[in-house]
Amino acid sequence: MGPHPAVAAIRLAVRRVLHDILSDHTTPAAVGAAAAVDAPHKLPPSSRPRSSGQVPPPPPLVLVACSGGADSMALASALAFEAPKLGLRAGGITVDHGLQPGSDLRAEEVVGRLTELGLAPVESIAVSVGREGGPEAAARDARYAALDSAAERHDAAAILLGHTRDDQAETVLLGLARGSGIRSLSGMAAVSGTGGRYRRPFLHIDRQTARKACMVQSLPVWDDPHNADPAYTRSRLRHEGLPALEKALGKGVVEALARTAQLSRDDADALDTWAGQVEASVRDAAGLLECAKLYVLPPAVRRRILRRAAIEAGAPAGSLFARHIEEVDRLITGWRGQGAINLPGKVVAQRQGGRLVIRQG
Amino acid sequence: MGPHPAVAAIRLAVRRVLHDILSDHTTPAAVGAAAAVDAPHKLPPSSRPRSSGQVPPPPPLVLVACSGGADSMALASALAFEAPKLGLRAGGITVDHGLQPGSDLRAEEVVGRLTELGLAPVESIAVSVGREGGPEAAARDARYAALDSAAERHDAAAILLGHTRDDQAETVLLGLARGSGIRSLSGMAAVSGTGGRYRRPFLHIDRQTARKACMVQSLPVWDDPHNADPAYTRSRLRHEGLPALEKALGKGVVEALARTAQLSRDDADALDTWAGQVEASVRDAAGLLECAKLYVLPPAVRRRILRRAAIEAGAPAGSLFARHIEEVDRLITGWRGQGAINLPGKVVAQRQGGRLVIRQG
Repeated sequence: MGPHPAVAAIRLAVRRVLHDILSDHTTPAAVGAAAAVDAPHKLPPSSRPRSSGQVPPPPPLVLVACSGGADSMALASALAFEAPKLGLRAGGITVDHGLQPGSDLRAEEVVGRLTELGLAPVESIAVSVGREGGPEAAARDARYAALDSAAERHDAAAILLGHTRDDQAETVLLGLARGSGIRSLSGMAAVSGTGGRYRRPFLHIDRQTARKACMVQSLPVWDDPHNADPAYTRSRLRHEGLPALEKALGKGVVEALARTAQLSRDDADALDTWAGQVEASVRDAAGLLECAKLYVLPPAVRRRILRRAAIEAGAPAGSLFARHIEEVDRLITGWRGQGAINLPGKVVAQRQGGRLVIRQG
Repeated sequence: MGPHPAVAAIRLAVRRVLHDILSDHTTPAAVGAAAAVDAPHKLPPSSRPRSSGQVPPPPPLVLVACSGGADSMALASALAFEAPKLGLRAGGITVDHGLQPGSDLRAEEVVGRLTELGLAPVESIAVSVGREGGPEAAARDARYAALDSAAERHDAAAILLGHTRDDQAETVLLGLARGSGIRSLSGMAAVSGTGGRYRRPFLHIDRQTARKACMVQSLPVWDDPHNADPAYTRSRLRHEGLPALEKALGKGVVEALARTAQLSRDDADALDTWAGQVEASVRDAAGLLECAKLYVLPPAVRRRILRRAAIEAGAPAGSLFARHIEEVDRLITGWRGQGAINLPGKVVAQRQGGRLVIRQG
């Protein structure tokens, strides 16, 4: 009898990602590990034949970032099961954000559970969360900084993150609320970070499946009270916004949002590529943007070029909104002698003699 | 003292669109009317000086489609106010869908109200609503068919539609629920239909402003019970889904959704243009799609070419979903000897000798 369908689903998702990680790691050790894919499954890495008298590098290490919640515990269990079969080492990191009393004990508990799953190394990292960008952004920044440093310290090939399709749907809606275009609708990437370090195997797995997989494997999970705290936008979205949307639009909304993320990401990538390719051709010999050449471009491409130019001139990307770019665009498409336009980061855009000059003022 | 801000807002929105209509109509009559923009406002069209003994064509006619609800009554009032100042004729059409008892009397009432506003001609058109595509789609199809025929019968330059920013936000969410990509997120166009016949002046005006404008002008409005009937998806979205989303994400959601529509539309247009330009270059001498050339294109462009090819081969656009195109795409990007793929409309896609063959089977 095979595993429960939920367990089979999470393992398959992790196996696919581990294959990708292996094929991205063409070091001798990784090639050896990749060859082990077709070897008998139970063979532990240490008993694989070695080709010479040299001490080989250790097999690549894959870490899981685990909060102790159902999603990341399910991920940890699947990693612990699949990694050895592919000749990979599997470890775990839990981040103690120090935002709740007893969070250090909670982190130690998670370390214990990950160790019980057979992961090694397992580590708890305490971080101090700042305030910049709001509580959710500050916690996220601190968490990724800790994970990045852990990845480097352990020379990890990848860090797996437990974001599910439901998380992805929420991220798309959060992006939608910004109204800043399709890039913000494209949610989280399956592969991100320095050198593609972060991988999200569960972006097509729903939260319910992860929860079920923990249940049938008798894995204790921890429900972060922040996830139900209506002070957090994402929590309100999860518990009120998205259910109401599902009630109005039908059960397929989460899946539709996740698919929108993927399609929007591909579209945004293609348009960025286009804008990048065209950009040099709309500049004059002095490197200034020529209004007449910008004018004939499709608006979607022109506005991306304008956005890039503003960021290059020093405007912070996060503060540069669609309405800023629209105003700059009107210097091209609706020219009637407007004055200089102030952009975030003290950047100024103005039209001078058929050229668009964007620079820090 | 100027008009109430809500009335000023709806009039400005209509005035802008009437200017666009005039500049698109470069017939002698329209040029005369355009010149009248700077003429004294109260001068009726019939008293404008005429240049010769010829009988000039009548000034262009702009119709408003009016249900009697607040949005379209506000639109009718603004059209009645602005059109004469630009030397345009203004008329109104109301469509009797025959879906509720007494709808014919209701339509007559709307005719009376439009006539009181000074519109001429004013007409009520009874349609019979079929069942194809569900009740909302069938009513819409019947309505636009009636409006199209009215436009032709009266030789109208344009028909104004009262869709507001709130309607646009709802349309984006409905498109999001389809999960079929950014084209379905692009909502309703400001200009659409044969020759750009339909114009939507209120896409940036919120429903509350339209309602307020009716109130301060003492215009009686009719609340269509369908708009509050939870049997309709749009109604559930309006009364439950969107308010819950606003509660979770903040008050700017409607505006953000409307802006997303515009940005998505521009992006989708640009990508369609790109796909159209590239398409010929990825076909061989016999006109077949070459897999190797498709492979190197950005996924967003490649999938658009595949979609166009499937539709050209006879697949109905409305039944062709993202998952169909993804499966065809895997013949290019994940080739491992797959068999033929069945698409809607009995269209079959298969890979043969490095070519992609898509045709009706």
